[in-house]
Amino acid sequence: MLYFRNDYGAGAHPAVLEALCRTNLERTAGYGTDRYCQEAAETIRALCRCPEAAVHFLAGGTQVNKTALAAFLRPYEAAVAAASGHICVHEAGAVEQDGHKILTVPTPDGKLTPPLLRAAMAGPFNEHTVIPRLAYISNTTELGTVYTRRELWELGEACRELGLLLYCDGARLGSAMDAGGTDFPDYAAACDAFTIGGTKNGLLFGEALVIVNPALQPGFRNCMKQQGAMLAKGRLLGVQFQAVLKDGLYRALAAHANAQARRLAEGLEALGVLLLAPAESNQVFPILPDGAVEELGRRVEFEVERKMDGGRTCIRFVTAWHTPPEDVDALLELGAGLLA
Amino acid sequence: MLYFRNDYGAGAHPAVLEALCRTNLERTAGYGTDRYCQEAAETIRALCRCPEAAVHFLAGGTQVNKTALAAFLRPYEAAVAAASGHICVHEAGAVEQDGHKILTVPTPDGKLTPPLLRAAMAGPFNEHTVIPRLAYISNTTELGTVYTRRELWELGEACRELGLLLYCDGARLGSAMDAGGTDFPDYAAACDAFTIGGTKNGLLFGEALVIVNPALQPGFRNCMKQQGAMLAKGRLLGVQFQAVLKDGLYRALAAHANAQARRLAEGLEALGVLLLAPAESNQVFPILPDGAVEELGRRVEFEVERKMDGGRTCIRFVTAWHTPPEDVDALLELGAGLLA
Amino acid sequence: MLYFRNDYGAGAHPAVLEALCRTNLERTAGYGTDRYCQEAAETIRALCRCPEAAVHFLAGGTQVNKTALAAFLRPYEAAVAAASGHICVHEAGAVEQDGHKILTVPTPDGKLTPPLLRAAMAGPFNEHTVIPRLAYISNTTELGTVYTRRELWELGEACRELGLLLYCDGARLGSAMDAGGTDFPDYAAACDAFTIGGTKNGLLFGEALVIVNPALQPGFRNCMKQQGAMLAKGRLLGVQFQAVLKDGLYRALAAHANAQARRLAEGLEALGVLLLAPAESNQVFPILPDGAVEELGRRVEFEVERKMDGGRTCIRFVTAWHTPPEDVDALLELGAGLLA
Amino acid sequence: MLYFRNDYGAGAHPAVLEALCRTNLERTAGYGTDRYCQEAAETIRALCRCPEAAVHFLAGGTQVNKTALAAFLRPYEAAVAAASGHICVHEAGAVEQDGHKILTVPTPDGKLTPPLLRAAMAGPFNEHTVIPRLAYISNTTELGTVYTRRELWELGEACRELGLLLYCDGARLGSAMDAGGTDFPDYAAACDAFTIGGTKNGLLFGEALVIVNPALQPGFRNCMKQQGAMLAKGRLLGVQFQAVLKDGLYRALAAHANAQARRLAEGLEALGVLLLAPAESNQVFPILPDGAVEELGRRVEFEVERKMDGGRTCIRFVTAWHTPPEDVDALLELGAGLLA
Repeated sequence: MLYFRNDYGAGAHPAVLEALCRTNLERTAGYGTDRYCQEAAETIRALCRCPEAAVHFLAGGTQVNKTALAAFLRPYEAAVAAASGHICVHEAGAVEQDGHKILTVPTPDGKLTPPLLRAAMAGPFNEHTVIPRLAYISNTTELGTVYTRRELWELGEACRELGLLLYCDGARLGSAMDAGGTDFPDYAAACDAFTIGGTKNGLLFGEALVIVNPALQPGFRNCMKQQGAMLAKGRLLGVQFQAVLKDGLYRALAAHANAQARRLAEGLEALGVLLLAPAESNQVFPILPDGAVEELGRRVEFEVERKMDGGRTCIRFVTAWHTPPEDVDALLELGAGLLA
Repeated sequence: MLYFRNDYGAGAHPAVLEALCRTNLERTAGYGTDRYCQEAAETIRALCRCPEAAVHFLAGGTQVNKTALAAFLRPYEAAVAAASGHICVHEAGAVEQDGHKILTVPTPDGKLTPPLLRAAMAGPFNEHTVIPRLAYISNTTELGTVYTRRELWELGEACRELGLLLYCDGARLGSAMDAGGTDFPDYAAACDAFTIGGTKNGLLFGEALVIVNPALQPGFRNCMKQQGAMLAKGRLLGVQFQAVLKDGLYRALAAHANAQARRLAEGLEALGVLLLAPAESNQVFPILPDGAVEELGRRVEFEVERKMDGGRTCIRFVTAWHTPPEDVDALLELGAGLLA
Repeated sequence: MLYFRNDYGAGAHPAVLEALCRTNLERTAGYGTDRYCQEAAETIRALCRCPEAAVHFLAGGTQVNKTALAAFLRPYEAAVAAASGHICVHEAGAVEQDGHKILTVPTPDGKLTPPLLRAAMAGPFNEHTVIPRLAYISNTTELGTVYTRRELWELGEACRELGLLLYCDGARLGSAMDAGGTDFPDYAAACDAFTIGGTKNGLLFGEALVIVNPALQPGFRNCMKQQGAMLAKGRLLGVQFQAVLKDGLYRALAAHANAQARRLAEGLEALGVLLLAPAESNQVFPILPDGAVEELGRRVEFEVERKMDGGRTCIRFVTAWHTPPEDVDALLELGAGLLA
Repeated sequence: MLYFRNDYGAGAHPAVLEALCRTNLERTAGYGTDRYCQEAAETIRALCRCPEAAVHFLAGGTQVNKTALAAFLRPYEAAVAAASGHICVHEAGAVEQDGHKILTVPTPDGKLTPPLLRAAMAGPFNEHTVIPRLAYISNTTELGTVYTRRELWELGEACRELGLLLYCDGARLGSAMDAGGTDFPDYAAACDAFTIGGTKNGLLFGEALVIVNPALQPGFRNCMKQQGAMLAKGRLLGVQFQAVLKDGLYRALAAHANAQARRLAEGLEALGVLLLAPAESNQVFPILPDGAVEELGRRVEFEVERKMDGGRTCIRFVTAWHTPPEDVDALLELGAGLLA
């Protein structure tokens, strides 16, 4: 079977695994207070050119989103997010479980924009409603679209104008930076807090949370512990992040994934296949005849995004740091045969 | 420095790391639905002689306690626990964060007993109070004491009689089984749910939750996801647990840790040192003159349990699967010198 | 000023106040365990022809919605509601504060229908999403629309088919029954639980919750207490409900309010005024030129629903049990003058 | 039956009821934004000599405690309270339901003191524990004991020194002020927030929350609404509080209750009856032979506090603003007969 199901199907990049093996029998302090976490945090602060940022390492994406919003918001404060946002649909109500409503904004492409945000903030909001306090974006989005540097900057401006915190879920931040021409300092400048996703870009597991806004920093480790989000052997996260961040591997892995997705998208479009959204990053959403989807399913692993009218189905192909270019070739060949 | 600070200071047992490396580039389904998790769950069901148990793998101890109690209890239902219980003092209010009160029971040795439980249940409980619904025990306890098979059995009986669920936090279950002469089926028989701790006994991280009571099984994975406790590469947990459970390594590692603690305790007692609690498992709590503690701190890593009167301090030594016997010898020699 | 702002601007119907005064110095048991609450609960069970229903009395609408949903749902279970539903927009995130997401359904008229519900339940729902478990409706709706007996019955059927509980927020149930031709037994038959609103129909304050489904009854009083929703002098609620329910006053008061709204709506329509929604109950939503709205505001109290395009504004007039018919006449006369 | 069960068994003082009746048909703004609430808030600010205090009116005691603590604390912050405190035992886990742990302090008499507080704050507290942030006291306490002016002042000082907010649950504040020689300004000076209980001292229902600390004021009304604690006809609370506070009735009613309790306690002590705690306010806790308790139960309503050894039972008599002096005489006569 060709594997295009997701970007967390395999383990870690060999360099990450090597670092884990090399340090395995060292004995360090627990809970992320070790020197590996300190080094990785320093690396991140340097990459972001943000020496005052607080950096925390958590195990997973839902966990970090949930913990951050619980820590940042007062009880009656709400998040604003694209209706397709990960926290809205794929986290089993994790944010609500901590007491916070999410106000959703329909978007064509999964991206929040200043006009959409301003419309969402038109209200009325008063003491009978929740008070929107934080804009949640994901980059890349759930549709694989990407914010450009300018879009990110404008969104940050809009948030400040509207009295909103800006939080970026960077579960696929490497892919987003590669595709959108952004870099760490752009996120540190635009956002009050953002995550650097490791799980989907070379690590066994792990998300780094960068809290730029000093007002949001106090008490965060207490919140982590309370949420069950403080790993006993916290150094595992520091070791892994340091392995991919210290010399650019993080960016290189994402570039590989994006390049394979681009090749795949271009090949599909050359076959006349319609895509649900522009294939800007490492996710491709082709719309195919139901029969072709069924046939493909015998040789390729992928996910069904949704049934569409006209006997068509939108499916999702995801590439990763470990996707062999020849698998893209093979998939395109298969597609050519099915759609001929 | 000699290392007796805790049993999660080092990484994984080599066999575990080898399994992770061997399977690293395989691509599997996510979120614990892969065959490694299935195999490990089967192994656990077989070890427990409990083919109907639901088995889930989570990353950490606070996380599994928190998620289980949130899943098992209705809003107004409370847990009953020893006042020294981990959920009472060392989880930053994780159980309360999900809405549940913990009723605490003072105990001399960290263990709940049927009489203590019956006294705690004397109430009155009514619609103005929380309703105790679940007894939480840890085995080994936070004081290193251990439940025998008979104690466990009697506690299970008492809980059923009192209408309480019995939940055992087995963060150090291996050590507890080795020390107390219990085995997996004893827990499956006595408890409605219990955990098998991996983090402190050979894994990089991971706790297995065994839900024996069928009434508690539905919806648990939704709760996991909602709590941010469902690992994307869930197989990492299945691979690790299978590595230690399939052929007895789990028991052997715990036996080693216990043996070193026993040697250490006997050596200390031979030096006339008083222990806070009987050294039944892999934790030893010597009470030493403040000066000796200060001196020891220059050559040994350990934790201070608490200041005591008479210029004395209770400290904690923890042994682990990776504690070299010669480190115990060296520590005892140091002690002999200091206390001479 | 003419008063059409809302139906909770004045105090209680004289018969209610008289009952409170008459019983004022009696000394009864607290927390709703008194004989007045028992009598009122019996009256409600008889009116509903539902001898097994559990009946509870709470102080306010948000309180009863919040407490009911917290009691009925497991942590990961969600409510489904019209996007305009009271719990979605006017309760400051009360349902989310207890941990539950609300899935919203856009509706033209504030009403859920079986097709809308089936579409909302199309999913996919799985362990990464919340699980919809309860359909929330309000009758009358926030737009003043009303469910007919048949609609209610069909919605109940659809919910049973879809595995959803049906909960009806009856803050204006009297008005809904009068307008829609429904009676208490219809709600007991269709719903798993529903409320009988007192605050807006003759009481100083108070909502009765009727829990029809026996599976939802246990533990509710504990949830009430935990939510701060158990009034010390609970009998105040029993006395008031008994005063309006024992001999039909509740229905008569609502009929009066509806009749005045109907007269008002017909008069406005005769003046050529467009209404946002059909004026089925005691709320009327005329769309007026901004200038007329401003002018009206000098002589009449009302609320602005929303700004509309074309220099128009939708406002809301609410009638109540205490609205004098001559105030409707005066308002219509004013309108005729302004719109001439 | 003589009635000494509690101080919320009857309705409102006639002056309160008269004020409700007199204003009943007025139509005012809702949710506590009316002029009656404004007047009552002004009266309270003047009584407290605290023109900057925020004053809110809520329906009940558990509700106000719960809402205040949810509004004042961050997720990982805890309250410290006497083990017998109302929030610890008689509110069905309301504070925990909003996510906060309560650290309990055993006390002989229900009162927190600076030494007890300092001991409770000795910790250790760190990122693995909750962080105590607010000291909860009730005055009068659950044992009827009372803080003197000096005790209150010293407790306030200790809290500031320890970085704790001081919150006083004044469900029986009138009784406490009368008994302890304190007045409103003492609470405004010592506490960050405190409540003035109406339910137990002349109102149908209602507690006023006075938030002295400006940092705790923002967003409170949103929290109220979210907790279902904002009454639609909020003026009912303003009208009632103004009726008892504007000319000293509140103090007079409490003085009457206290005087009757004092007479009762002195009479019982003259009969040789032992009291569980000094009868400082309007609660008396005599310890009587079981047989006498049983006999008394046929002619007097009271509550059983707890069974004691030696065939004795501690019961509770409560006096109120409406307790007839001759009922105290009658009760003492009964007692004399039973104990002769």
